[in-house]
Amino acid sequence: MHFFSSNFTLGILGGGQLGKMLLYETRKWDVYTKVIDASLEAPCRIACNEFVQGDLMDFDAVYNFGKGVDVLTIEIENVNVDALEKLEQEGLTVYPSSKTLRTIQNKASQKLFYVDNNIPTASFTRFAYASEIEDSLSNGGLQLPFVWKSAQFGYDGQGVKIVRKLEDLEHLPNVECIAENKVDFKNELAVIVARNSKGESKTYPVVEMEFHPEANQVEYVICPARIEPEVMKKAIAVALKVSESFNHVGLLAVELFQTQEDDILVNEVAPRPHNSGHYSIEASYTNQFEQHIRAILGLPLGKTDSKVAGIMVNLVGAEGHTGDVVYENIDAILEMEGVTPHIYGKKQTRPFRKMGHVTIVDEDVKKARAMAQKVKETIKVTSH
Amino acid sequence: MHFFSSNFTLGILGGGQLGKMLLYETRKWDVYTKVIDASLEAPCRIACNEFVQGDLMDFDAVYNFGKGVDVLTIEIENVNVDALEKLEQEGLTVYPSSKTLRTIQNKASQKLFYVDNNIPTASFTRFAYASEIEDSLSNGGLQLPFVWKSAQFGYDGQGVKIVRKLEDLEHLPNVECIAENKVDFKNELAVIVARNSKGESKTYPVVEMEFHPEANQVEYVICPARIEPEVMKKAIAVALKVSESFNHVGLLAVELFQTQEDDILVNEVAPRPHNSGHYSIEASYTNQFEQHIRAILGLPLGKTDSKVAGIMVNLVGAEGHTGDVVYENIDAILEMEGVTPHIYGKKQTRPFRKMGHVTIVDEDVKKARAMAQKVKETIKVTSH
Repeated sequence: MHFFSSNFTLGILGGGQLGKMLLYETRKWDVYTKVIDASLEAPCRIACNEFVQGDLMDFDAVYNFGKGVDVLTIEIENVNVDALEKLEQEGLTVYPSSKTLRTIQNKASQKLFYVDNNIPTASFTRFAYASEIEDSLSNGGLQLPFVWKSAQFGYDGQGVKIVRKLEDLEHLPNVECIAENKVDFKNELAVIVARNSKGESKTYPVVEMEFHPEANQVEYVICPARIEPEVMKKAIAVALKVSESFNHVGLLAVELFQTQEDDILVNEVAPRPHNSGHYSIEASYTNQFEQHIRAILGLPLGKTDSKVAGIMVNLVGAEGHTGDVVYENIDAILEMEGVTPHIYGKKQTRPFRKMGHVTIVDEDVKKARAMAQKVKETIKVTSH
Repeated sequence: MHFFSSNFTLGILGGGQLGKMLLYETRKWDVYTKVIDASLEAPCRIACNEFVQGDLMDFDAVYNFGKGVDVLTIEIENVNVDALEKLEQEGLTVYPSSKTLRTIQNKASQKLFYVDNNIPTASFTRFAYASEIEDSLSNGGLQLPFVWKSAQFGYDGQGVKIVRKLEDLEHLPNVECIAENKVDFKNELAVIVARNSKGESKTYPVVEMEFHPEANQVEYVICPARIEPEVMKKAIAVALKVSESFNHVGLLAVELFQTQEDDILVNEVAPRPHNSGHYSIEASYTNQFEQHIRAILGLPLGKTDSKVAGIMVNLVGAEGHTGDVVYENIDAILEMEGVTPHIYGKKQTRPFRKMGHVTIVDEDVKKARAMAQKVKETIKVTSH
């Protein structure tokens, strides 16, 4: 059924900010949409045609929701995959597939997938329980330091720790996990691959994550990455290989390390629009959200080139502030040319909570980078 | 009150397609919005925070709606101006002002405004009734041919007729009207001016309306216009003067004629986002909808330059088709690089009904123009 058909419904699992940005694009083409999320306060609620309250990890909630749509996609990976599998068996179009989601949801199986498919990644050991790590260290199977990652639900720092000495093991939860070689990298890069059901692929330019020298936190996502053309080529080839290996349909954001030897290693992937592609709203011919919709609806993929250079700065809550949010100096950044703030509409801030992002575009990436620094130094997310 | 305040509400009179595109931008900054429209099927209903059903020409409906918002704007000019005036007297911020709207709503008073403010426009005569025209012709006060325009509610062709001979007068409605000199123009141009309450102005590049050689209908809006720099300068100066004369706040789209002698004459204005600025969504650093919001909320105005050249093609219903709409070959145009269709979501088509628009962007305006022609020849809005 074509998406212009008056009976067509696109279903989205998850009602967060990524879903909201996806929904803007469905409006442009008048695609009828239905969203499920546990929270009645979900950002998507206002932007979809129909909203259903339900737990994304609950089999029945996801299964019943899926029975009422024609194509089903996600804006968050933590959903009930068994329900998706049953829906697929019953003929529903689900992108990303349950198989891909199952592999990605578990970091151990994700890493094994890379190994099985000959995709370069940092070497690692899988443990059923963190308590097994000490044995492995004492018998020489594992060396310090390493990166510990919980296999399930490891999000932004919470499920990731660098283990430098034995004592660091003490506070690890005793769950399935991996111990990964600490990669000595020059740059952290990302490539977004769009792929449709016909197997057609397009890649966005390689972006670079610039880290704060002390805080070890991504400060800027820079497009294009300021790296050698040869490294770009290699990064794109690896990202394409990952997308093809998953036989993926939709967007796949592939996070990569560029090692000191200019090798490219896959860090992890997200099978959906991604923070590293937010710059595309202002900078690209086809933004990542429109591209995801094109891919999952079986439409031709759009041009992924950039009109201008783009830099994204995450807007996070300032330290020492918890409560009703205030965006200090937002007028001052609106005064800078080519600067677009995106405010996610969360009413409460807390330290490091993601409250929005700002995109800075300019023909000259150096000028954009300088402006991004000014933006970062100017706007502050505080509280009353 | 700053628009980020949790109590702030932006009100929009009218729930049509322009309002919907305006609402996308409010979402980006999480501005709380309330819309009033007579139809429960209004496109805005899905994109605003609160929707009120009400007649825009009804004093009480508009007045009561206005009492519940902090800033009030419009997406259509035909609204009850008396209610806006009362709201202004009671302290509400209303952009465009009731005074400006009152002047613009009546084409005779709009033309008189240009004369009073020394703004170049085609010469004209005002008639309280169309029946007075014949007398004026017979006593030599008026010559054939001329352009007849009803003073009120003259929309796209319906309120405009070219009178070449006496018999053409027969079918004119006997209402207040103007008879305007038929301008022999080289080009029809438009300039969008953004102006905020501090009196700061920014102008978008001059765009050109390219007409179908036979059908006398705008086929393409082209940015930048393919005209001499001197003519561009003149057009921008005239547009700025119009905006300042109205002491306007918000967007003002100024439609202009470039005469055979390269004089610039004002045709008419629209005090809101406008069809001639749709290209800005894909081509400009700041699109017209974001700019309107910046202007009426007292924020700094954004950069109006283009990242790339942009061409807009209106999608209108094909002749001979009335009923459930079908967008033939939409996949084929999605395959062309830099082409973005915007589908307004009207379920029924009829000949010449405006169903959407398509934007074509490219670094080279000539390449974009050639592609626009291909788009126009490919996509067809028909019915089942």
